[in-house]
Amino acid sequence: MKLYNYFRSSASFRVRIALNLKGLAYDYLPVHLAKGEQKQAAFANVTSEGLVPVLELDDGRRLTQSMAIIEYLDETHPQPALLPADAPGRARVRALAQIVACEIHPLNNLRVLKYLAHELKVDEDAKNGWYRHWVRLGLQAYEAQLAARPGTFSHGDAPTLADCCLVPQIFNARRFDCDLSGLPRTLAAFDACMALDAFQRAQPSACPDAE
Amino acid sequence: MKLYNYFRSSASFRVRIALNLKGLAYDYLPVHLAKGEQKQAAFANVTSEGLVPVLELDDGRRLTQSMAIIEYLDETHPQPALLPADAPGRARVRALAQIVACEIHPLNNLRVLKYLAHELKVDEDAKNGWYRHWVRLGLQAYEAQLAARPGTFSHGDAPTLADCCLVPQIFNARRFDCDLSGLPRTLAAFDACMALDAFQRAQPSACPDAE
Repeated sequence: MKLYNYFRSSASFRVRIALNLKGLAYDYLPVHLAKGEQKQAAFANVTSEGLVPVLELDDGRRLTQSMAIIEYLDETHPQPALLPADAPGRARVRALAQIVACEIHPLNNLRVLKYLAHELKVDEDAKNGWYRHWVRLGLQAYEAQLAARPGTFSHGDAPTLADCCLVPQIFNARRFDCDLSGLPRTLAAFDACMALDAFQRAQPSACPDAE
Repeated sequence: MKLYNYFRSSASFRVRIALNLKGLAYDYLPVHLAKGEQKQAAFANVTSEGLVPVLELDDGRRLTQSMAIIEYLDETHPQPALLPADAPGRARVRALAQIVACEIHPLNNLRVLKYLAHELKVDEDAKNGWYRHWVRLGLQAYEAQLAARPGTFSHGDAPTLADCCLVPQIFNARRFDCDLSGLPRTLAAFDACMALDAFQRAQPSACPDAE
């Protein structure tokens, strides 16, 4: 398999974690988002969306959207499972993943921050305020879900799809000096994840294109 | 089952469609987002997230996040299926749903538009430009996916999770006068959906709290 991705892209980071947890080897194909390589012709031939990650399977088929890719990996390589065995548990894990992937990250990704700065002329302070606002709101919702049920990780005692989404979001939150007070369960889940080699090897600083 | 929702919330609309497609009856519990009812104590007891939809099951358990809710409904009430039987097909349908739910809608929901107007002092024209920009970009990506493969609906010849997400997004796009040119396959899928009673009955104007 080949993964088109970028060291700092948190959606890419999610898929790197899942590939590592599954023990699946892959070729790392860097697409430099900050330099705009996702808009260039070479990458346009890979995907019309201009977004990473893209997972290219050995048969040449290409999958997009990080949560969809992780669900595919979980269906085709069931062990270790990244979703619980019970339907309510799966609903909870997917909802947690979606707090990050639908409520926080879309508002804070690179192209959105660029639009705020260049099209809407939002200054640096206000842009950082925007970033921190959505992180805070989303992580407080995440924490409330975790507080309602015991567990070492986001759901139970093994990492799931939710942790694949949470960990990159915490990396981003720290990079932008977000307030992470009052989130004990969320940060405990983060720490439990980062004690695992699969998460360590996926982090931006461990990537071949890290700067 | 009870659905906490709002006639104009497109995430609520997605779940109403899925419930109708599955033939599942539910109590409609309106939460007036424009009046801020999602922030009031009565709803805070329902969910800490302050977001609709919330699906309350007959055992009292509450599910959040529209895509997670729809996957739960599909797992617990398999017919008619809202996801294909094959893993690559499921990956494609989830990716399509996520183009809407992760790339378009999070940027354009009510609380984000309010933040743009009130915190960032973005004027009405610029706010509408923002709205249309993300709709256009996302729907073009959606169209490119649909153009790559024949089908009446977004995937194949029956509605899926992708259509549950697409249809509310097209309603929003029209409400905000977005440019929908050059999207023939996407609009054909929309029309195929709207020919079905399940979609008709779920639309905002058919809701008990419609204004």
